[in-house]
Amino acid sequence: MAPPLLTLLTDFGLDDYYVAAVKGTVLRLAPGTQLVDISHQIEPGNIAAASFLLAAAAPAFPEGTVHLAVVDPGVGSQRRILVAESAAGLLVAPDNGLLTPLLPGARVRSVECADLFLAAPGATFHGRDRFAPIAAFLLRGGSPTDLGPEIADPVHLARTPPRREPGLLAGVVIHIDRFGNLITDIPAAWLPAATGPAARTTEIVARVGSHTAAGLADHYEQIPRYGVAVMIGSLGTLELAMRGEDLARRWGVDPGAAVQVRWRDTMAGPRGRELPGEAKERVE
Amino acid sequence: MAPPLLTLLTDFGLDDYYVAAVKGTVLRLAPGTQLVDISHQIEPGNIAAASFLLAAAAPAFPEGTVHLAVVDPGVGSQRRILVAESAAGLLVAPDNGLLTPLLPGARVRSVECADLFLAAPGATFHGRDRFAPIAAFLLRGGSPTDLGPEIADPVHLARTPPRREPGLLAGVVIHIDRFGNLITDIPAAWLPAATGPAARTTEIVARVGSHTAAGLADHYEQIPRYGVAVMIGSLGTLELAMRGEDLARRWGVDPGAAVQVRWRDTMAGPRGRELPGEAKERVE
Amino acid sequence: MAPPLLTLLTDFGLDDYYVAAVKGTVLRLAPGTQLVDISHQIEPGNIAAASFLLAAAAPAFPEGTVHLAVVDPGVGSQRRILVAESAAGLLVAPDNGLLTPLLPGARVRSVECADLFLAAPGATFHGRDRFAPIAAFLLRGGSPTDLGPEIADPVHLARTPPRREPGLLAGVVIHIDRFGNLITDIPAAWLPAATGPAARTTEIVARVGSHTAAGLADHYEQIPRYGVAVMIGSLGTLELAMRGEDLARRWGVDPGAAVQVRWRDTMAGPRGRELPGEAKERVE
Repeated sequence: MAPPLLTLLTDFGLDDYYVAAVKGTVLRLAPGTQLVDISHQIEPGNIAAASFLLAAAAPAFPEGTVHLAVVDPGVGSQRRILVAESAAGLLVAPDNGLLTPLLPGARVRSVECADLFLAAPGATFHGRDRFAPIAAFLLRGGSPTDLGPEIADPVHLARTPPRREPGLLAGVVIHIDRFGNLITDIPAAWLPAATGPAARTTEIVARVGSHTAAGLADHYEQIPRYGVAVMIGSLGTLELAMRGEDLARRWGVDPGAAVQVRWRDTMAGPRGRELPGEAKERVE
Repeated sequence: MAPPLLTLLTDFGLDDYYVAAVKGTVLRLAPGTQLVDISHQIEPGNIAAASFLLAAAAPAFPEGTVHLAVVDPGVGSQRRILVAESAAGLLVAPDNGLLTPLLPGARVRSVECADLFLAAPGATFHGRDRFAPIAAFLLRGGSPTDLGPEIADPVHLARTPPRREPGLLAGVVIHIDRFGNLITDIPAAWLPAATGPAARTTEIVARVGSHTAAGLADHYEQIPRYGVAVMIGSLGTLELAMRGEDLARRWGVDPGAAVQVRWRDTMAGPRGRELPGEAKERVE
Repeated sequence: MAPPLLTLLTDFGLDDYYVAAVKGTVLRLAPGTQLVDISHQIEPGNIAAASFLLAAAAPAFPEGTVHLAVVDPGVGSQRRILVAESAAGLLVAPDNGLLTPLLPGARVRSVECADLFLAAPGATFHGRDRFAPIAAFLLRGGSPTDLGPEIADPVHLARTPPRREPGLLAGVVIHIDRFGNLITDIPAAWLPAATGPAARTTEIVARVGSHTAAGLADHYEQIPRYGVAVMIGSLGTLELAMRGEDLARRWGVDPGAAVQVRWRDTMAGPRGRELPGEAKERVE
């Protein structure tokens, strides 16, 4: 039988003893647990970035996986610690919005089982002293019910959801990956007949600030060298990519930047008509 | 039953094949071993930094854990290889001071079991060719006794221990963490009634070079934004932290910097009296 | 019995969710698999660098290990996916040259088992959607034979092999490690009586561009401080190293730089004779 499985996501970095101390504590309290890092390279205190990574990675893991996420600028304060039973597994995190995208449909509890916590000299390392014992309790088969009462008011990150209008999709860059691709929150399914041949033309145009990407590509090698295209990304949302270069750096785009996607219904009008205000930029 | 557990701490970095070659060798010789990284990001050859990280992380792990630490500028020379039975587990490391903080009370041996070592083309990679087989021997349940004779003279890093005088604690910054917090070697227990309410005032003042931190905070959110406070750190020593910024960078402090902590016995004199030479800096 | 073992080598970096999504998928499809990272820090799209690292690390692992390497700028295009049964284990990688050094003697197949692949919104993440399921199939004990037909034409990286002439060995820097050592592709066994005392003199001279290293050192501490020497590296090839500094940075050398090694047969002529064109640089 497979061992219990824990993923870890923190802003502790890889140069320090913090990650190892959390792992050692989990293994002391729940021996044999298999540990998988999501990332420890979250920018210190960047809850939104952690929130994206957790929601992107967690669904790939087997049922029953425990996911421990500690990006916790409020460590030691009165902020609650949450355990959530979600479709993506059992989630353990501070109550600061980190779990936002995984909360719909989840059963959320505030951990009030202080007897689980480790005695410690200071109040600065709840990753080791509180979160690790909570995760170990669940990994040993403990029930979330025993950790604390269900709550209805977990902290949510403020987010403007993407929106659709006739001929327009609007959203934001929610992540920039290592290759400089711009991952947006705009569902690819919102494209009209996205998988049909009609859409596989240059009629799709995406705009970020004053920059424009034209055309929908299936894969990176379809993009002309140094060209920029719209793609259907691995999370099912639209993505902008440049072939052979880091697009985010080239365009100077940061997470949060607004993205607009327009297209022409090629069934409804003559081909070749200009999209107002777009065509000129495309040929620059 | 939980598998045997090995932690790894090196200066090999994460871009190279060195860490994987050590792990592969351990798994070839001791199949099923669970591997946990402490860090591989130690600055090349920085024995003192490795020494801190090992001593900070190792105690969190379960009894019986083997800790392999290879920061080894003397690789291939006549420097000994040590195996130490310590309260923090079985330690394997070159004899260059890396084990210093874990040596008190430990039984230390010099490994002289050359038949364990792997044949190799060069003498530059003892991590793979010597340390990994020694660790695997222990992970398979081999006894340290069979590895070599006990020794009384392991290399120690030169260290000036922290000291206390009436009204003064003096030590050094032993570590700077990812958040820029300054971890000192001054035991928090040396603070007068550190946990009592009397000490939770601005009477505590810490000085590093020309910089000053005032007040003892329980957790980071208690510190005013861009303020600097003294805290009780996760290793039981005093720590200096700035809220919302990297204090080490802001102050330009490196590991080894001298730290002085003063306070006033609020029971023994009138409140509000200036600490000589401190007060002015505090209000600058 | 030891669990099935998978190594991972990618250019996905450690800041993203990509590595975790691959691992989660493997663990979902082949529960209990032990995972070991080779590296995820390959420069994006650098197939040659990945090729070196895989060939250097894989032989250390136990028989039966599956090695998954995904540096795949052609993801989503018609490039094949390969499975190779090699002396270094079962290899899974895109057909882009990544496996080059491990191909001699290997049985190579093109994976054509599309029913293994996961349904996914886009075609940009074959690591998760195709490579992970293929690896999981092998880790569960599936036979490579069932994955697709044997092929005779896998893509090879173009490489000029090192060559030897009387008194001269010529090759290239194939890797620069974290310490700045220059790893060459010149077999150390090509040195005349490399392990005999006659060769352990300053008669060995290596040249990279206008820079010169003189002498063969057994280990780093034998090199004078800030001196540069030739060494026998951990892969059995010659290596150039500077003591106490990063040689690659000091000399400004990149992977691919040409290296020439000359020596004098000290048995055949009087000692002290100058090597043409070398001696002057040595004393500069």
